[in-house]
Amino acid sequence: MSTTSESYLVGLIGGGITASLTPPMHEGEARRHGLHYLYRPVDLEVIGRPGTDVGALLNAGRDLGFNAFNITHPCKQLVLEHLDEITPDAAALQAVNTVLVREGRFIGHNTDVSGFAAGFTTVLPGAATDRVVQVGTGGAGSAVASALLSCGVQALHLIDVDPDRALQRATAMAELFPDRQVEAAAPQALPELIRAADGVVNTTPVGMHHHPGTPFDPQLLDGHQWVADVVYLPVDTELVVAARAAGCQVLDGGHMAVGQAVDAFRLITGVEPDRARMREHFLQLLAAQQAAAPRR
Amino acid sequence: MSTTSESYLVGLIGGGITASLTPPMHEGEARRHGLHYLYRPVDLEVIGRPGTDVGALLNAGRDLGFNAFNITHPCKQLVLEHLDEITPDAAALQAVNTVLVREGRFIGHNTDVSGFAAGFTTVLPGAATDRVVQVGTGGAGSAVASALLSCGVQALHLIDVDPDRALQRATAMAELFPDRQVEAAAPQALPELIRAADGVVNTTPVGMHHHPGTPFDPQLLDGHQWVADVVYLPVDTELVVAARAAGCQVLDGGHMAVGQAVDAFRLITGVEPDRARMREHFLQLLAAQQAAAPRR
Repeated sequence: MSTTSESYLVGLIGGGITASLTPPMHEGEARRHGLHYLYRPVDLEVIGRPGTDVGALLNAGRDLGFNAFNITHPCKQLVLEHLDEITPDAAALQAVNTVLVREGRFIGHNTDVSGFAAGFTTVLPGAATDRVVQVGTGGAGSAVASALLSCGVQALHLIDVDPDRALQRATAMAELFPDRQVEAAAPQALPELIRAADGVVNTTPVGMHHHPGTPFDPQLLDGHQWVADVVYLPVDTELVVAARAAGCQVLDGGHMAVGQAVDAFRLITGVEPDRARMREHFLQLLAAQQAAAPRR
Repeated sequence: MSTTSESYLVGLIGGGITASLTPPMHEGEARRHGLHYLYRPVDLEVIGRPGTDVGALLNAGRDLGFNAFNITHPCKQLVLEHLDEITPDAAALQAVNTVLVREGRFIGHNTDVSGFAAGFTTVLPGAATDRVVQVGTGGAGSAVASALLSCGVQALHLIDVDPDRALQRATAMAELFPDRQVEAAAPQALPELIRAADGVVNTTPVGMHHHPGTPFDPQLLDGHQWVADVVYLPVDTELVVAARAAGCQVLDGGHMAVGQAVDAFRLITGVEPDRARMREHFLQLLAAQQAAAPRR
């Protein structure tokens, strides 16, 4: 007689995520489908708990009737040991951003990977994937590299200000995709690599409001290349604007932000979300947020 | 920019409450007001946690974004030590059934008392309150006795199969209402007390589906008296049916069940609920529940 089977309670666990647009994105899409859906941000900084509490929060959430959680920094790895099951994609990456609670068990997924991949194939259909350069190999970079390789990239060059991290990621990815060429490269090789590439991806924070600039000189780009960014604050980063001006096809960072939400929403509800509508909503939310609290 | 300030997440903590009608009652009324409102049952028997975990559950709920909890057996007293503030009514009774989370603090209320009182004055307006007999002095009995006295009952006789408990409650109530006559009476005094009473109240479980019968011989009643019951499974208990047949005015147990929800809903949302509509919904839910799983 309870109505709980027809409703969804979801949380986002992470640090500094109070203003995240993921909760309103989910709630907005659910409303359009007539779903009873509540999505709570659980900001570790606000509640004063460390990332290592993610397991305790998951257990409490299960007891209190949560159906799922999204997990973000600094918990995407910390959460692993608390899961009962994990998808191959997430296991390969050793990072989980979505946990479903199913009959009391925790199932880990990674929709950062699938979300970036879906944006890539939707927005840049038929993009050349022989040679790609990726700048940045942090957490987002890891997911993006995995997505790019799963989308058919043959040769992927990874560059990072921290060469050790770039090497580590390249080694890990090469193991996961043994038939591809995945290599770490030094920052000084960047101009040459970009000139030879079909596409270039930024997964560093450079281009964010509080981190202005471009991760490389956009004059290196020509109009036959495609460019992808994961920064979405703002969506039109300096790199995105310059790449468009150069005539490149562009995948802005909003697509990954929306893509991870699209895939998580589908996993949580079993209902197919409307990607274009969620993107539209995301851009509206972003504009409203900027208007309410301009950052520059 | 988050939408969470306009939404409500509420839980009911107690043992064996999975089929409680309080969650759908709240959600149904919220829907009518266009409120984004999710209410989760947190059944201690289902999650395998003891009543003494109520404090841990409250803390976890606060961290996960709950706005309020209803609290029921066996936690109405256990919860007291975890509260930051408590209303005088609840403090007097040493029992809390509603906890609001306000700026991280827990505020305890008791809407069993206010809920019964509201039903009493709404359904039995102008009822004579010189002499009232109450059978049963358990948790519900405690709240009802307090409500009756707050509604102006001058002489209240408390009767219980456990005479010590009756005496204890009578003493406690007499202290809270020093200008009234509150006395424990022996079961054998019941016929005489009922014959002299303006109204009679049942707060024992007798009359429930799995506890059939009446708490006293209904032939003792005459049509000038009013009768109240707190049993609502079924709403039409043998006592309620017999009292109506005798010409008595009757307050059935559904009114207390709805009354506590009405008052909790108002506290949680600040929105005035429609008592008659919630009662109607409650009766529909009850009928559907009975049809789905007949208990006799």
